Amino acid sequence: MSINSFGHLFRLTTWGESHGPAIGCVVDGCPPGLELDDTWVQRFLDLRRPGTSKNVSPRQEPDRVQILSGVYEGRTTGTPIAMTIENVDARSADYPIDAPYRPGHADFAYDAKYGLRDPRGGGRASARETAMRVAGGAVARLVIPEVEIASAVVEIGGDADESRWEAILDEARAAGDSLGAIVECIATGVPSGWGAPVYAKLDAKLAGACMGINAAKGVEIGDGFGAARLKGSENADAMRSDGRFESNHAGGISGGISTGQAIVVRVAFKPTSSIRVPVPSIDASGREMDAVTKGRHDPCVGIRGGPVVEAMVALVLADQKLLHRGQCG
Amino acid sequence: MSINSFGHLFRLTTWGESHGPAIGCVVDGCPPGLELDDTWVQRFLDLRRPGTSKNVSPRQEPDRVQILSGVYEGRTTGTPIAMTIENVDARSADYPIDAPYRPGHADFAYDAKYGLRDPRGGGRASARETAMRVAGGAVARLVIPEVEIASAVVEIGGDADESRWEAILDEARAAGDSLGAIVECIATGVPSGWGAPVYAKLDAKLAGACMGINAAKGVEIGDGFGAARLKGSENADAMRSDGRFESNHAGGISGGISTGQAIVVRVAFKPTSSIRVPVPSIDASGREMDAVTKGRHDPCVGIRGGPVVEAMVALVLADQKLLHRGQCG
Amino acid sequence: MSINSFGHLFRLTTWGESHGPAIGCVVDGCPPGLELDDTWVQRFLDLRRPGTSKNVSPRQEPDRVQILSGVYEGRTTGTPIAMTIENVDARSADYPIDAPYRPGHADFAYDAKYGLRDPRGGGRASARETAMRVAGGAVARLVIPEVEIASAVVEIGGDADESRWEAILDEARAAGDSLGAIVECIATGVPSGWGAPVYAKLDAKLAGACMGINAAKGVEIGDGFGAARLKGSENADAMRSDGRFESNHAGGISGGISTGQAIVVRVAFKPTSSIRVPVPSIDASGREMDAVTKGRHDPCVGIRGGPVVEAMVALVLADQKLLHRGQCG
Amino acid sequence: MSINSFGHLFRLTTWGESHGPAIGCVVDGCPPGLELDDTWVQRFLDLRRPGTSKNVSPRQEPDRVQILSGVYEGRTTGTPIAMTIENVDARSADYPIDAPYRPGHADFAYDAKYGLRDPRGGGRASARETAMRVAGGAVARLVIPEVEIASAVVEIGGDADESRWEAILDEARAAGDSLGAIVECIATGVPSGWGAPVYAKLDAKLAGACMGINAAKGVEIGDGFGAARLKGSENADAMRSDGRFESNHAGGISGGISTGQAIVVRVAFKPTSSIRVPVPSIDASGREMDAVTKGRHDPCVGIRGGPVVEAMVALVLADQKLLHRGQCG
Repeated sequence: MSINSFGHLFRLTTWGESHGPAIGCVVDGCPPGLELDDTWVQRFLDLRRPGTSKNVSPRQEPDRVQILSGVYEGRTTGTPIAMTIENVDARSADYPIDAPYRPGHADFAYDAKYGLRDPRGGGRASARETAMRVAGGAVARLVIPEVEIASAVVEIGGDADESRWEAILDEARAAGDSLGAIVECIATGVPSGWGAPVYAKLDAKLAGACMGINAAKGVEIGDGFGAARLKGSENADAMRSDGRFESNHAGGISGGISTGQAIVVRVAFKPTSSIRVPVPSIDASGREMDAVTKGRHDPCVGIRGGPVVEAMVALVLADQKLLHRGQCG
Repeated sequence: MSINSFGHLFRLTTWGESHGPAIGCVVDGCPPGLELDDTWVQRFLDLRRPGTSKNVSPRQEPDRVQILSGVYEGRTTGTPIAMTIENVDARSADYPIDAPYRPGHADFAYDAKYGLRDPRGGGRASARETAMRVAGGAVARLVIPEVEIASAVVEIGGDADESRWEAILDEARAAGDSLGAIVECIATGVPSGWGAPVYAKLDAKLAGACMGINAAKGVEIGDGFGAARLKGSENADAMRSDGRFESNHAGGISGGISTGQAIVVRVAFKPTSSIRVPVPSIDASGREMDAVTKGRHDPCVGIRGGPVVEAMVALVLADQKLLHRGQCG
Repeated sequence: MSINSFGHLFRLTTWGESHGPAIGCVVDGCPPGLELDDTWVQRFLDLRRPGTSKNVSPRQEPDRVQILSGVYEGRTTGTPIAMTIENVDARSADYPIDAPYRPGHADFAYDAKYGLRDPRGGGRASARETAMRVAGGAVARLVIPEVEIASAVVEIGGDADESRWEAILDEARAAGDSLGAIVECIATGVPSGWGAPVYAKLDAKLAGACMGINAAKGVEIGDGFGAARLKGSENADAMRSDGRFESNHAGGISGGISTGQAIVVRVAFKPTSSIRVPVPSIDASGREMDAVTKGRHDPCVGIRGGPVVEAMVALVLADQKLLHRGQCG
Repeated sequence: MSINSFGHLFRLTTWGESHGPAIGCVVDGCPPGLELDDTWVQRFLDLRRPGTSKNVSPRQEPDRVQILSGVYEGRTTGTPIAMTIENVDARSADYPIDAPYRPGHADFAYDAKYGLRDPRGGGRASARETAMRVAGGAVARLVIPEVEIASAVVEIGGDADESRWEAILDEARAAGDSLGAIVECIATGVPSGWGAPVYAKLDAKLAGACMGINAAKGVEIGDGFGAARLKGSENADAMRSDGRFESNHAGGISGGISTGQAIVVRVAFKPTSSIRVPVPSIDASGREMDAVTKGRHDPCVGIRGGPVVEAMVALVLADQKLLHRGQCG
């Protein structure tokens, strides 16, 4: 089982609460001999870090990663790579214990599952956990140097026109409200043959990985839901003798296995659940009260979703590369 | 690893090619003492069976399941339940070995991965494999008697108006073309607390399960991609003191854990890849030729997707129930 | 979890009761392109088959294996290989339901765990299940052609002198009693570097594999318990510049990783639990009565242990080879 | 896969090199609501700690454990429990990079596997890693309060007479040599029904767990190798109507499932490989030279094996309890 672990041969395990002393992860199964230092990982963490603009959470976390094991003289040794980030700006007072369940947040479901929870900042449900996914993804990228992974926000609040985003974000922030977003991630350079049929399909692994990101509510590969609206003759990606395809409706995956085309994943992020607009809710004793979140939160959590989607895609691809090499290498 | 297995405590392993002597599965981890016989499983297989209408493949398979182990005097014993279905109508001649890669199908990617493949009927990539998912799902339902799972096609060829479906299907069939579809599956009765945070989120497991179904290209939970177009205040599911929610934008899952509301999953199926409309392609030696599929195929594979989506949802929920009982029971 | 599965990348799942219609297995993760047919597997099954001498169970099972999937034109395709053997000589009458728990057998513990069991012939606890391990092991050998695996009984009833075994076996059989045995298995040709440190040590995997064989009560690697009686200077395997070791106290494994020397495993098998000598016991309702087993059983189960030990060693090595190639290849 | 992880529902992952900044672990799957603080874990670490007598390594490590996550107000929350211990007395100078491979140690096999290694103190192969097993085992004990686990050294240098141990240890130490030992661990209070048939047998899990401890070369359950020298009539554990057994040759496990009797495991530890007696060896370039280890090492590593064996037994039992509850609860 893998409650807090992800992957098989290349395996990430994360730990830590948003408001504990630190968060961290262990990357197990990384091949030996790869060049790795803190700087490489930090570069990706900095892209995800909060406090960098008015549209993301004002929480100030330097998020300095420290590699504690698995690297010797600048190279991976094949042994587990432990990384930690200290939590330096954890204001627990923002999270009183008698607060109502925040609708859309994990509070209620956690209490239902565990009978108790760490109320400070969402505990493991905090988006802060995703920092360690980004750290793990940075290591994963070293395993797949042939692959280039890039992502972009392609829609905010239902609007695909980038020029209007600043205005609608300003409006939502002013209203204490939040907006959803759609992130698209493209991985080029993946050779044909990664993934596996049936229950380890590459697209299934990507879907599970991306739906497991906080606030994700939908995942599609290639044309995705759009493909359900095409005819078979429109959706077919014709092949030419030079090995190229004439289109990429499939998003680079057929029958669960990569085709050599660009892998295209889109993830729908719901609007941030923590908003200042009051929402009717209850507290742990069932008393009705409005939930009004005063903590520091992003008006559009999807904006910061890109680096996390990239990290999950990198983790999946690194794992699949090793698995393919193991079975068919 | 789990190329051909699905689940942890409740685990399905399937085997068999479309055109071999039989297909089969092993269900491992089923709790003891549950009433089970062939009839129960057959009931669900009959719902998925081809040859039942003009809109699904005319292949005639009686699909009689036989339980070979794990049941004694009508009850499960806790040991592995093996089931098989003989392949009685496998016409290999429909699949010549020098055929071009069928665009959108797994042919090319399989060759790229394995260097060889069983060309008869798609091998493991055949939708026939999903019969064993349905068989496994039938057993899974016994583990979660408190849950009701139902599904419906909600869109065909981009059209949500059911009254027009027959006409557009007739048209596509006549043209040798195919249509995509969207299937919605709803599971009611799931108590709050199933699932787990971070990498074993219930929605992540459902997304992985459903994206792993043949021809699936998109998965959403609750409002899904629609949630990305709502404001936080619109998307919030208010809670009342009687423990009820006033809406279900979340689709029954918060923070990866069930809330007690109905779980809502939607799956986008691409149009059947095997069509009579010629599509430019190549054969294994790289020679250009049009792919024209003459085998027996569904004009809209999504129509038969419902029972498979239900099965995958049942498999996920049975597994999560046992896991929850293990960790928190 | 893996109640009825063994291995990671190369994975065996078995099913079937001793007295059901058949037993079977699924081998998942076998690399493509390996030559495989029924004959190869049958060869190993024949070595294990009962009814071949007076010292093994007189049960007459032809044990004809049938490969149902995963092979096309004589070669593995990379997809799951299903195999079955029909149970043709299952005399359930030998196992009355009101029988006492057979001491040393799994009867009591099964009832305690599952609340019910299939009383016919021990169900999954029957040594018959090991036929499928042998079948899986036969496929595993194809993955590791560089390795030669051989085994021998080295002790029966505490006696290492082979010339006396026939006499003590005759004596035990005549008395309705049984004898234990020790089997030694040697794998040569394993290159250095297979296995992994910490929790996936090659010796740990071998120990788990062999202790999981029916009736096994002890496992040792290299000098094993004898090493606990040596000084460090006596136990050290000196190395020479030609890459050879001057001794092999370690049994071919250091720090959980193969050294390139022969891998040496010894397994202690207890005497067959099913004996004609009466042993005080109880039935399921707690009533005291003597257990006297009349079914067909081996006077020394260890004699047939060799092919099963070899199979488990082959399964472990095939899996470790693929894992090593995946991580370090 | 689980190179650095152990267990399924209750899962320990460890990281860290002997001479890096710290070692640590993550315990995943611990049920919520259990009382836990640093003091509890420290108590078990102190029993294992080096530097406490002349017969164990003089390395001075305070080994102060710090819990970094998964505990809130003194109780486990069900989320991952991260623990670390700083390495404060790591003298790398003891481990020159041009040293010969230490015979019996993991040096050579590591180089063969990974192509490079951290030469300081054995890296992951160092017995220091076992501190985190003890920490994990301390948490595991909380999951199984009904079970009492105790261990004792029962043999040193082949001698079972405790009164002679000090003398033979003094002698070995003076000679720069080392001695092997046998540790026996007994777990009482385990109810009948834990474990599972076939590949998840309780004894198989214990054997894998214990053979994975550094320097372990043999494992036996109950009478173990001794059972191979008994007759079936001698080895049978008669049962009485009060549910008690008249003997415990089986060591508390039948058919892979606990019987309710005391579980008895014995582990053979080879003599410490690092000795001052010169042993012919080679360095990484193949040059012949004597290996003479000057670092700080235990003259009898088995003496400190007891707490580690107990920890592994606790980890196995906690996992099996949760698994049993999941499948049969």
